[in-house]
Amino acid sequence: MNKVKKQRAVILLSGGLDSATVLAMATEQNYDCYVLSFDYGQRSVVELQAAKVLAKKAAAIEHKVLRMPLEDFGGSALTDLSIDMPEGEPQEFEIPVTYVPARNTVFLSLALGWAEVLEADAIFIGVNSVDYSGYPDCRPEFIQAFELMANLATRAGVEGNKLSIETPLMNMTKGEIIERGLALGIDYKQTVSCYQADDRGYACNHCDSCKLRREGFEQAGVADQTHYF
Amino acid sequence: MNKVKKQRAVILLSGGLDSATVLAMATEQNYDCYVLSFDYGQRSVVELQAAKVLAKKAAAIEHKVLRMPLEDFGGSALTDLSIDMPEGEPQEFEIPVTYVPARNTVFLSLALGWAEVLEADAIFIGVNSVDYSGYPDCRPEFIQAFELMANLATRAGVEGNKLSIETPLMNMTKGEIIERGLALGIDYKQTVSCYQADDRGYACNHCDSCKLRREGFEQAGVADQTHYF
Repeated sequence: MNKVKKQRAVILLSGGLDSATVLAMATEQNYDCYVLSFDYGQRSVVELQAAKVLAKKAAAIEHKVLRMPLEDFGGSALTDLSIDMPEGEPQEFEIPVTYVPARNTVFLSLALGWAEVLEADAIFIGVNSVDYSGYPDCRPEFIQAFELMANLATRAGVEGNKLSIETPLMNMTKGEIIERGLALGIDYKQTVSCYQADDRGYACNHCDSCKLRREGFEQAGVADQTHYF
Repeated sequence: MNKVKKQRAVILLSGGLDSATVLAMATEQNYDCYVLSFDYGQRSVVELQAAKVLAKKAAAIEHKVLRMPLEDFGGSALTDLSIDMPEGEPQEFEIPVTYVPARNTVFLSLALGWAEVLEADAIFIGVNSVDYSGYPDCRPEFIQAFELMANLATRAGVEGNKLSIETPLMNMTKGEIIERGLALGIDYKQTVSCYQADDRGYACNHCDSCKLRREGFEQAGVADQTHYF
């Protein structure tokens, strides 16, 4: 009896709520999961500790943390300490200063490199266009264009083995994401969403990311177990 | 009298013959040049020394060398010392083992991040589809797809300021590239093309890259001033 090779996927995991849920969804879909995180000069490195815990709990085949010096370019409040972190209401129709230039393009490109070596079938990324951060590289038209490019860039594409970019959260509200993750057994206390979490992983409760997360727990009708400082 | 802002470009520079020529072409087109090189675990780090010399000679506004741990993924003879460097004739219709998975995608993505911070108008890359390495990420259809994706990924794209990916070498033979570069004053002795150059920048005269380069000098009808070991 032939043993069918399991499908492989590279999962981008920041250690936040969304990507933790994506990892659980890919695991449930029976992919062999290769998890990729980045140390890209972000203010909050404690999210990488969260990513390690989450990858281990999900029984990922492998977890790589790549150093990626995006802070060399500056231009974002997440990587440039001279830019103030915004605390007011998010501005609609405006890209916030927490946007890191080309971040998802860079992350997906490196995931593509690993996917090619692994002969993986998919890359999973937790982008979302509903409770929307205002970042251009979270939109479905960006993801479609990236997938098209990726299949022209690589050996797999040339040989006709299509790689798909999977965005299972794209059309879900934050509340739906949390409900789904709880059903899959995620302990959201282990995730860090805050842009400026402290060394313990405690959250500020003021930044845009904290607000979106808190509202998500309200939508889901479950207690927010985030630790705030 | 208003001073017109000069156009800005990010130039990908490996330190090899092609990218040195691209840098000279962009300079001649009167761009303010921001030069980007990568230490990506390649066998030959001496090409980065060449890149520094070339960027300085071209009076680039700035030259960044980013560390990019592509060797963590393996899968290429250029970054994985356990894979033998091929020395026979290049195989047609086959992607060589020197291909680094998704390398141009990764390099262009990081150039895109910097271009966005700089509000640059163009990214220049020395890909070529004539004297062709067999790498999928050197083909014009890949570049077109990347440009489309890049303009959906970024603030500039959302705001309608189109970024172009410039590939001035795409349709030139190696001989034509060399003729053009010589006319622009390039000293090709300062460039390093060899996949396994020694510490002095001397070349092996056996690898695919050495062969393409040597044939280029023959096509151009000029003496090959490369130092071989």
